[in-house]
Amino acid sequence: MSDERLIYLPLGGAGEVGMNAYVYGYGKPGQERLILVDLGVTFPDMDGTPGVDLIFPDMTWLKENRDRLEAIFITHGHEDHVGGIGHFWADLRAPVFCRRFTAALAVRKMDEQGQDVEHVNAVGAWPETVKAGPFKVGFVPVSHSIPESSGLVIDTPAGRVVHTGDFKLDGNPVVGEAFDPKLWNEIAKPGVQALVCDSTNIMSPNPGRSEGSLPPALNRLVAEAEGMIVCTTFASNVARVKTLADAGVAAGRSVCLLGRAMKRMVAVAIDTGVLEKFPHTVTPEEAVDLPRESLMLIVTGSQGERRAASAQLSRGKFLGLTMKEGDTFLFSSKTIPGNERGVLRIVNAFSEMGVDVVDDSGGLYHVSGHANRPDLEAMHDLMHPKILVPMHGEHRMLREHAKAGEAKGIPSVVAVNGSMVDLTGPQPQIVEYVETGRTYLDGSVKIGALDGVVRDRIRVALNGQVFVTLIMDENDEPLGEPWAELVGLPEEGRSRAPLVELIEAAADGFIQRADDKVLTDDDQLEEGLRRVVRQTAVEEIGKKPEVVVVISRLT
Amino acid sequence: MSDERLIYLPLGGAGEVGMNAYVYGYGKPGQERLILVDLGVTFPDMDGTPGVDLIFPDMTWLKENRDRLEAIFITHGHEDHVGGIGHFWADLRAPVFCRRFTAALAVRKMDEQGQDVEHVNAVGAWPETVKAGPFKVGFVPVSHSIPESSGLVIDTPAGRVVHTGDFKLDGNPVVGEAFDPKLWNEIAKPGVQALVCDSTNIMSPNPGRSEGSLPPALNRLVAEAEGMIVCTTFASNVARVKTLADAGVAAGRSVCLLGRAMKRMVAVAIDTGVLEKFPHTVTPEEAVDLPRESLMLIVTGSQGERRAASAQLSRGKFLGLTMKEGDTFLFSSKTIPGNERGVLRIVNAFSEMGVDVVDDSGGLYHVSGHANRPDLEAMHDLMHPKILVPMHGEHRMLREHAKAGEAKGIPSVVAVNGSMVDLTGPQPQIVEYVETGRTYLDGSVKIGALDGVVRDRIRVALNGQVFVTLIMDENDEPLGEPWAELVGLPEEGRSRAPLVELIEAAADGFIQRADDKVLTDDDQLEEGLRRVVRQTAVEEIGKKPEVVVVISRLT
Repeated sequence: MSDERLIYLPLGGAGEVGMNAYVYGYGKPGQERLILVDLGVTFPDMDGTPGVDLIFPDMTWLKENRDRLEAIFITHGHEDHVGGIGHFWADLRAPVFCRRFTAALAVRKMDEQGQDVEHVNAVGAWPETVKAGPFKVGFVPVSHSIPESSGLVIDTPAGRVVHTGDFKLDGNPVVGEAFDPKLWNEIAKPGVQALVCDSTNIMSPNPGRSEGSLPPALNRLVAEAEGMIVCTTFASNVARVKTLADAGVAAGRSVCLLGRAMKRMVAVAIDTGVLEKFPHTVTPEEAVDLPRESLMLIVTGSQGERRAASAQLSRGKFLGLTMKEGDTFLFSSKTIPGNERGVLRIVNAFSEMGVDVVDDSGGLYHVSGHANRPDLEAMHDLMHPKILVPMHGEHRMLREHAKAGEAKGIPSVVAVNGSMVDLTGPQPQIVEYVETGRTYLDGSVKIGALDGVVRDRIRVALNGQVFVTLIMDENDEPLGEPWAELVGLPEEGRSRAPLVELIEAAADGFIQRADDKVLTDDDQLEEGLRRVVRQTAVEEIGKKPEVVVVISRLT
Repeated sequence: MSDERLIYLPLGGAGEVGMNAYVYGYGKPGQERLILVDLGVTFPDMDGTPGVDLIFPDMTWLKENRDRLEAIFITHGHEDHVGGIGHFWADLRAPVFCRRFTAALAVRKMDEQGQDVEHVNAVGAWPETVKAGPFKVGFVPVSHSIPESSGLVIDTPAGRVVHTGDFKLDGNPVVGEAFDPKLWNEIAKPGVQALVCDSTNIMSPNPGRSEGSLPPALNRLVAEAEGMIVCTTFASNVARVKTLADAGVAAGRSVCLLGRAMKRMVAVAIDTGVLEKFPHTVTPEEAVDLPRESLMLIVTGSQGERRAASAQLSRGKFLGLTMKEGDTFLFSSKTIPGNERGVLRIVNAFSEMGVDVVDDSGGLYHVSGHANRPDLEAMHDLMHPKILVPMHGEHRMLREHAKAGEAKGIPSVVAVNGSMVDLTGPQPQIVEYVETGRTYLDGSVKIGALDGVVRDRIRVALNGQVFVTLIMDENDEPLGEPWAELVGLPEEGRSRAPLVELIEAAADGFIQRADDKVLTDDDQLEEGLRRVVRQTAVEEIGKKPEVVVVISRLT
């Protein structure tokens, strides 16, 4: 038996949907040569990460082992798979491989962060392969909700690993290659040691529907619309954008793309040859002059993002265009959990304008980009792997997916971020736990999720804040009275007197009562002032604010 | 023609789901005698209202007109209908009327806020009526998701108004009176001038299902569960709690209620005679000693609330009870939009424990308490009103409901909060807009939504904060250097030096360069310091923090 092993180590994406980063390694324990699959981001929210710009997986482990890293492979161009590449390339310094469309997006990510775009290598689809240390990696076209998504065939001395990436089985994906069972059969033929498989839709019991099933309903909706019709979807879902645009043209409408991402994605797809026969579009300036019944806008902002085109339109004029009574707004999309409030804000704003809003609640205008349970099971059957490793999903999804594997007799493992799994033998084995977590991009700085910076912001947001300044003279006597500044607190409470004055009076009272021992000890002074400030606030307004005390001693 | 009129004025609940407060008036314009129907709250969130405890409708208009207010009627005991009564009673000072179960909850709300509970009057169901100025009001039992919900029959000199309250048509509601078409026919017989009608589920195209349809599936699930089974639902849904408890007993399990609201609601329902034959329950102390396969917990926290029993169990031990592999957790509930993240946090935490989580995604374990579109239309047909006023819903729901009315030839109006509608004639007419909005309960203080207090908290949460102090001596010269305190900001940025030091150096540089004109002018000093602090922060960390400057002048 060899003393080398094949390992799998998710650093992000296993136990969550977002910020994917999966490491594979082969070699002697602790000396495995490594590859990284995907390097994505996840998005912050006001609940847990106010003020944060992006969330990355903690890449410390890989950075510390970067001398062992052979290459980085990106399966597709969604932010949760490629969004971190520019931010971490300098820490990792390995060549990046992806297909052409993805490469165009990765190049942009590198460039934005000042990295040399030459490190991004566009490669062809399977059977073309890239050699990376002990690995030979090929990109197998899969259908998803962005062009040129790929599963990876990763050949290792310990056998073949199939890493599905995000995928669905689609016989008619509108853009890109249809699902090809023959091709996958070929891939499975030599035997698959491990199938590392998308889990996102394991909870969906029915077979997934094809992107190609949408045109009839969409065409009908667009044909029957009376005023202007505005459609939103993810800009990266180029197939959907094309289906929508085609529906517009079929109804005799001019199509206008609104929102930077929308225009960019279509342009990249055309440039890279992914998208053919996209209809002629008009600019917003041209659109303004067209009769609204002969116009279709395709816009960004399907998730209710405040700055995207849909939200701008819901607040009034955007690039000269406005919506009004008799217009139709279509969400050709699903609301990601957590985004409901933002989406409903837009829907209700349109309702106030008299705009009819249509969404996918009837199941007509959107299909998912992920394989549902029966499709995942079809993939298991097709690959017939020795080991199943569910990835890309919240814990409940990974667990359900592993159960589905076990039910068929495939040894499966729930491996969350940080679990190093030995895939060499007949059973997956968790051999080590690597420290992992989240890194925040905050403005231009990377900070650790546990650094306390964001915790302090949340505390102020919940409790408000009081700043107290006190000047002590050369004789350790207070010079004047303590001064308070309030942030995020009501002006008055129970006694109907200004809260700031009551707080200053309480602070002054404390200082007056304090003996020399306290007055000469900054810690005691601070602690005492903090206590009386909080006490006064609790009595007056029923809240315990955060308190910062600054004592200036003249010497 | 009379110079008196019948008006309807929603102050809350029209254009949102939450904080219901509907005013009716009859009399000469501007002198109408008034009644208030419901006085509810809505709940804050981190996105828009961090740190806020409760949200009320702005009751200023009614307070200013309280000499015209005859009475307050509460349709049912949900927080969004009764939650504000204790907080505003002192401003309104009118007798409160409701049915017995609701009265028990209203009494508690009054008592908690130090109001005399004698103002709450429990009254019987229709045909009993309460006279209030020109109004005669009766409580007609309807089904909903809390006992003794009522529609109101409001007889006025201008005809009969039917205010549905929250309702559904349920032939078998488990607890309380079944829908009685004969009774409603009687009510419609004299003619209904206006139907003011729940709109919550207008978007749901299929007929609603009965509470009584749930036991088969629930009984099966509980009977087949292997370890402990834990169920959550809204505590106030006493019928559901009973169905769950009955299912537990049928499966030979002891039932334990967990969470204060759960125990309280069941106790109130038993005390008021609403709930009969509720199974014997065991205490948590007794439950700990029982074998888990013969135990069922019914717990609070169906919306993922952090402090409720379900969240506590998902984090570990709660009152000695823990969940583990082989146990089942059932959400017999629907997640309210906006609560998804909190619910998923719990689901995934249970998944990590190996607990099987079951929810209503298959449509088996929950029914809504609101009438769906076909049921609303049945109500329209039954009441045959001259005017339809959709209420209780977001704008999109009110609009859709009004469209449904118009489609049948019933004059309808979308009347959002603040719209005073004249219901006297054959058509509803908006005759005035009253200023309205939201009032926050923040700690123990009521503040206006536009006071800026919460805005300031959000700004700090997003941007962080710098607090700068500067002491100027008697000669208007700086005494020492400016001092900075940072809150919610990274310790260092681009130059890898402590941010606080860089900010202090920049502030000092500004002071050194400042001429006498600036040094003697607090406004210019503050403005200049704020500018250099922000500039340094932007360069170093790419963020523009909030800045507070305190200048102390020794005199």
